Amino acid sequence: MHIGFIGLGNMGSGMAANLLKAGHAVTAYNRSPAKVDALAQQGATPARTVADACHDEVVQTMLADDDAVEHVTLGPDGIVASLPAGGTHISSSTISVALARRLTAAHADAGQTYVAAPVFGRPAAAAAAKLFVIAAGAPAALDLVEPVFDAIGQRTFVVSDQPYAANLVKLSGNFLLATVIESLGEAIALVEKAGVDPVSYVDILTSTLFSAPAYATYGDLIARKSFEPAGFAATLGLKDVRLALQAAEELTVPLPLGSLLRDRFLALLANGGGALDWSAITTLAGRVAGL
Amino acid sequence: MHIGFIGLGNMGSGMAANLLKAGHAVTAYNRSPAKVDALAQQGATPARTVADACHDEVVQTMLADDDAVEHVTLGPDGIVASLPAGGTHISSSTISVALARRLTAAHADAGQTYVAAPVFGRPAAAAAAKLFVIAAGAPAALDLVEPVFDAIGQRTFVVSDQPYAANLVKLSGNFLLATVIESLGEAIALVEKAGVDPVSYVDILTSTLFSAPAYATYGDLIARKSFEPAGFAATLGLKDVRLALQAAEELTVPLPLGSLLRDRFLALLANGGGALDWSAITTLAGRVAGL
Amino acid sequence: MHIGFIGLGNMGSGMAANLLKAGHAVTAYNRSPAKVDALAQQGATPARTVADACHDEVVQTMLADDDAVEHVTLGPDGIVASLPAGGTHISSSTISVALARRLTAAHADAGQTYVAAPVFGRPAAAAAAKLFVIAAGAPAALDLVEPVFDAIGQRTFVVSDQPYAANLVKLSGNFLLATVIESLGEAIALVEKAGVDPVSYVDILTSTLFSAPAYATYGDLIARKSFEPAGFAATLGLKDVRLALQAAEELTVPLPLGSLLRDRFLALLANGGGALDWSAITTLAGRVAGL
Amino acid sequence: MHIGFIGLGNMGSGMAANLLKAGHAVTAYNRSPAKVDALAQQGATPARTVADACHDEVVQTMLADDDAVEHVTLGPDGIVASLPAGGTHISSSTISVALARRLTAAHADAGQTYVAAPVFGRPAAAAAAKLFVIAAGAPAALDLVEPVFDAIGQRTFVVSDQPYAANLVKLSGNFLLATVIESLGEAIALVEKAGVDPVSYVDILTSTLFSAPAYATYGDLIARKSFEPAGFAATLGLKDVRLALQAAEELTVPLPLGSLLRDRFLALLANGGGALDWSAITTLAGRVAGL
Repeated sequence: MHIGFIGLGNMGSGMAANLLKAGHAVTAYNRSPAKVDALAQQGATPARTVADACHDEVVQTMLADDDAVEHVTLGPDGIVASLPAGGTHISSSTISVALARRLTAAHADAGQTYVAAPVFGRPAAAAAAKLFVIAAGAPAALDLVEPVFDAIGQRTFVVSDQPYAANLVKLSGNFLLATVIESLGEAIALVEKAGVDPVSYVDILTSTLFSAPAYATYGDLIARKSFEPAGFAATLGLKDVRLALQAAEELTVPLPLGSLLRDRFLALLANGGGALDWSAITTLAGRVAGL
Repeated sequence: MHIGFIGLGNMGSGMAANLLKAGHAVTAYNRSPAKVDALAQQGATPARTVADACHDEVVQTMLADDDAVEHVTLGPDGIVASLPAGGTHISSSTISVALARRLTAAHADAGQTYVAAPVFGRPAAAAAAKLFVIAAGAPAALDLVEPVFDAIGQRTFVVSDQPYAANLVKLSGNFLLATVIESLGEAIALVEKAGVDPVSYVDILTSTLFSAPAYATYGDLIARKSFEPAGFAATLGLKDVRLALQAAEELTVPLPLGSLLRDRFLALLANGGGALDWSAITTLAGRVAGL
Repeated sequence: MHIGFIGLGNMGSGMAANLLKAGHAVTAYNRSPAKVDALAQQGATPARTVADACHDEVVQTMLADDDAVEHVTLGPDGIVASLPAGGTHISSSTISVALARRLTAAHADAGQTYVAAPVFGRPAAAAAAKLFVIAAGAPAALDLVEPVFDAIGQRTFVVSDQPYAANLVKLSGNFLLATVIESLGEAIALVEKAGVDPVSYVDILTSTLFSAPAYATYGDLIARKSFEPAGFAATLGLKDVRLALQAAEELTVPLPLGSLLRDRFLALLANGGGALDWSAITTLAGRVAGL
Repeated sequence: MHIGFIGLGNMGSGMAANLLKAGHAVTAYNRSPAKVDALAQQGATPARTVADACHDEVVQTMLADDDAVEHVTLGPDGIVASLPAGGTHISSSTISVALARRLTAAHADAGQTYVAAPVFGRPAAAAAAKLFVIAAGAPAALDLVEPVFDAIGQRTFVVSDQPYAANLVKLSGNFLLATVIESLGEAIALVEKAGVDPVSYVDILTSTLFSAPAYATYGDLIARKSFEPAGFAATLGLKDVRLALQAAEELTVPLPLGSLLRDRFLALLANGGGALDWSAITTLAGRVAGL
């Protein structure tokens, strides 16, 4: 398949490379061209503009946030303006439900199709084609791009024919991770104040009831109070919780845990912790406990 | 070792049987004698009263709640009154921190030693000697009873020389499980209102970020809205959250998630759901979302 | 003084009439012209467009929400485009802090001055010139328009030289009113479940500790469960709480009570109560109590 | 009427003095006898024991907390043991709903009647016979003791024939006051971070929407951060919120605001603020906002 690929960051570079390995012809664009050159050495055709990457029937994007996706898709000489009628845009970025809806409508107005395909997995999983793809969109379009999903991931979950639903599922994943962090923070504050060693405590949890990687990863950071360098900055944590709350508000769904998390992130930022790892919100549970 | 064992419910029967299998001499007591007879067939010596089970240097208890433990330990002809000076009481019940402290003091006043050893694991794990033992108490006493722990569990974690700390760790485990339930309830309400199938959604979560058994077990119940028969009744869930909050108050630790959970359980009970599985608190997130 | 006045709703009609009574020359505009004609009979000069109301050195606006204010101020042929350089825009609408900041900057860019002057008081107070004016802006501009404030209100409070601060104070007032409503809802659910008559209970409160009109007004509505017709609709309540939370997020201030209120309003809307009076959020405290 | 009176603290001294002024014969007991002597100079008959104050048909108590009331009422030679059959105990202390129920039952078992009559008002109001009496109990008993209420208060509210309901109403009043404090703390943190002077802000609030004394009193303390000496210590605030939550749990009523307040008080105590005025919980809203 001929595929345009836009956004060669830590995630996108691995994804595009796997498209090449699977035998697809990839035309790649990135804002800073060095990443494009690196991929060209693996067989990609360099694109010097967004429009240059939109000559084929499928273009995939993997960008940082709403602003980047909006600019690349709806801006002058962007994807909507450049993709042929009948073309399909696979959007893998973590974006807001509201933007997903706007992009769906804009592509439909241009006779194009928008497919949402955010992924679960970190850069190492992207490089190893081990991502989990959360896909949503028109069934025919999903059939068409199935080879793309097969090339980048280990498994694809189709959740809806409405693209925004996939973004919502992605946002809910980060929401759930944040609840794990907060719950560990409160539990550790409680046992630590009784004299139990936090590192040993996390060892107990992950050896017994809570064997999921999320508990091991974040439990260790929290127990050791090791929040620098940030794996995922608190400012980004606040952004994702905010996106989840905004989506919930559009759907008229109260999320009390989301509200609590939002207040935690705001408190962390107000006290200078925006650049710390998002698991640093657990310092707040410790502080109010007088630890 | 000669061991008295009091409390032959679903958990205690398996634990006592494993003590026998490990070669210990067990004198067993239970309020309803049928359970004692069953264990006698496996080699135990029946005791007809609590005091009869307290003639050896070690007695272990596995009872339902604070009231039962208090009655058996502090009541007339109870353990404190009956155990020889120098004897050790291993308490494996899930009880309050406040009671653990009172029992520690009462045994000390009687020249005896109190060891807390609550366990993680369900009846099947108890029967298979696969429990995790959370132990706390005086080091010499813990050394003495190590063969008991080895006989009933797959691993022992020593968390403190203060017995109550082990009870606190146990309570924190149920607190964390309840946060998993609530977070799944909110996330499922959110995606379900966007048209995503809850069962598929839980499949995504447990296939990707949340592989721990807690997510699989409760995610399935919540997605299928299958709350009867109760694996663990909501009334017991409220009790354990209340015990966690009481312990936190004694230690002056705010637990906002615990507060939220308590309100959820109260709402469930106020609407007639006390006998449902504790994961039924998730119906509340759905109800306020208009589902 | 010559004053343009835009927005002759329930509040604006009374305010503009009081400007006339105080001897000012008022040129008035309203989207539906009937209101303009009514004011013309009291001596106002009718304006047929927004621009027509912007020929003097001062223009005051009293509009429904952010959208209306943004359209009238920044739209084509709007206030910024029409007001003479050196002119002053007094904005009395309840708007977001973010919009207040944008309008301040837009007027400054055009060599004009923006003054925020939201008011506390209902239509009857507006008609009687008994409003409380919360003013913020450049001191010289505030001095200039003091006669306007004197004509419409019983007292003016200057809170800052930053216009947005006045909008924040106004939003905080509605936030505080919403906390009064929620707290009454919880307290009434509590005593009602013990058999105490809610109407008598509110009588006790307002006769003793809580003599403020807010408690009498809302206590009566809540105790009688009288939520139709809405004095202030729940959808508007959600909007104002959302504006307070957004302003708080910009200022990095956690507002746990605001978060709780937002969840309450969402729950009410999700269950079909958006058109009810905002005090109907108290039905939620009753529902979770099984009342 | 002949009345025994037990508990001559800041409140009780004024109440008992007003009984004398109204022409009643008062036999008074207090743990420290100096207060008894002072009242004797106003005409009271001194009692040297609790039992000595229980020879008449009516005895009234005004004590510090549950422990004091339980000891005086149910202890050896206490009121239940000493009051004649058919006698009435008027309990005006702020106590738990649970204790009120136990006392009601204990008196009934002894052929006596228990009436709850907690009051709203501070010591000055007690001295001036300006208290508000919240009364509950058997109608015949309430008729009998009406002269007592008339002598100590300006108005009596009968809320139920179940005594505990009056205690619940009293606890709900302190709960509502605490919500006023918390809401002011959040609102002040918000506007203060935008540069608005807190003292001026409170002046606006109390001049406009919130004229109740509670807002003036606490707004001033909070704006000035004046928390010493405590008018009502944070430890007592926590106690009353806890009593309200316990009563709510017995009645199966979730109180989210109560939960939030409890966490605030715990945080204040954990950080060394237990002896400060209870309005010092507002420092927490400021701290998480980075103020």
